[in-house]
Amino acid sequence: MHTAGTASDTADFAVGLDDICAAASTLAGQVVRTPLIHAPRLSDMLGCELYLKLENQQFTGSFKDRGSYVRLVNLTAEQKRTGVIAMSAGNHAQGVAYHAARLGIPATIVMPLFAPFSKVERTRSLGAQVVQAGESIDESRETANELMDRHGLTFVHPFDDPHVIAGQGTIGLELLDDQPELDAVVVPIGGGGIMAGTAIAATALRPGIEMIGVEAALFASMSESLKGQPATSGRGGVSLADGIAVKTPGKLTRPVIDKLVSEIALLDEGEIESSVSMLAEYQKIVAEGAGAAPLGAALQLRERLAGRKVALVICGGNIDTRVLASVMMRGLVRDGRLVRLRVDITDAPGTLAKVSGLIGQKGGNIVEVYHQRLFHDVPVRRAEIDCVVETRNPDHVREIVEVLNEGGFRTRMLSTLSQDGPTQF
Amino acid sequence: MHTAGTASDTADFAVGLDDICAAASTLAGQVVRTPLIHAPRLSDMLGCELYLKLENQQFTGSFKDRGSYVRLVNLTAEQKRTGVIAMSAGNHAQGVAYHAARLGIPATIVMPLFAPFSKVERTRSLGAQVVQAGESIDESRETANELMDRHGLTFVHPFDDPHVIAGQGTIGLELLDDQPELDAVVVPIGGGGIMAGTAIAATALRPGIEMIGVEAALFASMSESLKGQPATSGRGGVSLADGIAVKTPGKLTRPVIDKLVSEIALLDEGEIESSVSMLAEYQKIVAEGAGAAPLGAALQLRERLAGRKVALVICGGNIDTRVLASVMMRGLVRDGRLVRLRVDITDAPGTLAKVSGLIGQKGGNIVEVYHQRLFHDVPVRRAEIDCVVETRNPDHVREIVEVLNEGGFRTRMLSTLSQDGPTQF
Repeated sequence: MHTAGTASDTADFAVGLDDICAAASTLAGQVVRTPLIHAPRLSDMLGCELYLKLENQQFTGSFKDRGSYVRLVNLTAEQKRTGVIAMSAGNHAQGVAYHAARLGIPATIVMPLFAPFSKVERTRSLGAQVVQAGESIDESRETANELMDRHGLTFVHPFDDPHVIAGQGTIGLELLDDQPELDAVVVPIGGGGIMAGTAIAATALRPGIEMIGVEAALFASMSESLKGQPATSGRGGVSLADGIAVKTPGKLTRPVIDKLVSEIALLDEGEIESSVSMLAEYQKIVAEGAGAAPLGAALQLRERLAGRKVALVICGGNIDTRVLASVMMRGLVRDGRLVRLRVDITDAPGTLAKVSGLIGQKGGNIVEVYHQRLFHDVPVRRAEIDCVVETRNPDHVREIVEVLNEGGFRTRMLSTLSQDGPTQF
Repeated sequence: MHTAGTASDTADFAVGLDDICAAASTLAGQVVRTPLIHAPRLSDMLGCELYLKLENQQFTGSFKDRGSYVRLVNLTAEQKRTGVIAMSAGNHAQGVAYHAARLGIPATIVMPLFAPFSKVERTRSLGAQVVQAGESIDESRETANELMDRHGLTFVHPFDDPHVIAGQGTIGLELLDDQPELDAVVVPIGGGGIMAGTAIAATALRPGIEMIGVEAALFASMSESLKGQPATSGRGGVSLADGIAVKTPGKLTRPVIDKLVSEIALLDEGEIESSVSMLAEYQKIVAEGAGAAPLGAALQLRERLAGRKVALVICGGNIDTRVLASVMMRGLVRDGRLVRLRVDITDAPGTLAKVSGLIGQKGGNIVEVYHQRLFHDVPVRRAEIDCVVETRNPDHVREIVEVLNEGGFRTRMLSTLSQDGPTQF
């Protein structure tokens, strides 16, 4: 792991504290001054004093509103007239579209064909011209380059741009304004813009503060690059943390992160899912995968963070409604609070009443029943039913299975989501 | 409707501004000082300047933490030693259990048998002795009375108690501390504790501020009582806004609300559902039915609130995970972004490929397919398939249906949730 540097090492970065302070003046009144909230319940669970910076409260639902605005207002008059182009499947698209419309700058956003409906619709409704092109990000980029050249548009980079980094860096100023005694800050890393900016600001204002990054294990490109390893990740994987699923770290952001960040936690997809459902259930906050990732990192590093004042930057909340619903339901399954039991029965009247009676008597709440007759390895005249049952916890499940077995109904619990067992606290 | 009064009329209330200020000192450091956030996107939609008071950020997920603490610390030493009892299926149970444990006061909570698992478990895990008794709230109350008498316990009322009202009233102080120029505040009404306290504080600090209440139409007990009507509501209905599903208004709270509240909006269940899903999607906030209800009221009263500075008290976020997931999915159906299409097909190889090809070509995303053969009124050798399709909006649905019909597949859209059509902005 790298040794965290101090502000004195940072003279050669593309962005300094003064740029970030200037960006803060530029942004005043143009984006939401997001709250830093204390998270008492998660603090208890983690054994540290946990604060959450709610960038999901920005107008377009992510921190991208900051950097986009700073980049756009700093264009020349000519560039503003001709217009800008950006390429993004998600939050950057919305940030650029939003502020371009407010500033009267024509904006073209190239979105890959696989971009979710809701994000395409939302970007369009913000006033941008959306061009859907490319089966992959690389193909989309080709289209963006063509359009840029043909129309003389200015490309707005999602992270590798000093204005963008300075804009995101205002998060660091606000963090220490609200809680000057922070010991550590956990920030998601995709291309590295939000981490680079936040780290420059936070370490300048409070030397010694620990900056911790988090990446999806499927897209560990910054970690690998810093370790001098070839980039092995992100080849075709799909991460719930699509906001940080970036294959190539930024050229401007990499040296900052190398110098100022002490550790980058890597999360598997299960940890990212858990983080999203924990924030919804325990903190009543909707976060997207990338936005929730800092919680997963804090869980991994619990011992190291114990007793310290820690801020998690919840960078965005743009998670597809259908995906969020499914993640929350899978969270119940993961915790053993929703199980699927397969029960052998005789195919005769009254059997379902007996089975459901036993489950109900033990306090299980049946939410779905499926009958299986055709495809299972059971004799004719016998059948299986699958009952989806809401339960209190894994012990409760065992009690219910026991009472069914004692009642003469052979019962198995069908596979849960993972072999890891429920999340432990 | 009633005429809003001013602070000078309020001398005869059980609670005054000074009590609420005293409660604020008592509460300092004991509960979360919740943020009042600006909601830029909902403001745009509603045409007013909208702020949200996030009481869902309290430790137990609702404002009940405030009143419970003030009530408990004001017990006599003897009462504290002997212990307290409360009756609640939800938030009040958790508020009392939480602070009683912190203060070392033995707490018994009677919860009806129908109380959701998650709330029973949570109350127990906060350290209270939970007694599950009663098929109805009335039966639970009998059990609570018995236990109270037998063990000499002190009953902690959920709303009709001056300490509780003063505790909830601290919300009013914080609202005007954070945004002194508020024109109106929308507060949920169940028994009336949070509204009475907030109204006393807010109208004292800012005479002329408009206090607007909101009730579930199924439990419009306060509205009916104030109009001198017999209580007709709440007889057996089940509301998503279970936090305000109260059949009998408080004796102490009623006169306050009569004097200080200008209007009480009534929401049907669809409006409450919409409010929950809108807060999750547009503001990234998890609110329970009662907590989201003020947004539904603001939608009803949009013209009246236009251009004004309005605060919504999001009183709690304790919604069952399964219910929230289902509400969000139903929100997509309501908005025409998830539809179920029934398509007549010939029961032959290749047909599904053709149907799904047409839907995909039009940009619809098929998320589920059901084959129907047995129970439908179609000849043998023909069949029907139901496709659940993710779409952009109702126009997009019409386009997809058209292309299927043109392709020779008779297609209908199955009934949506309501006849009201999608939410309009």
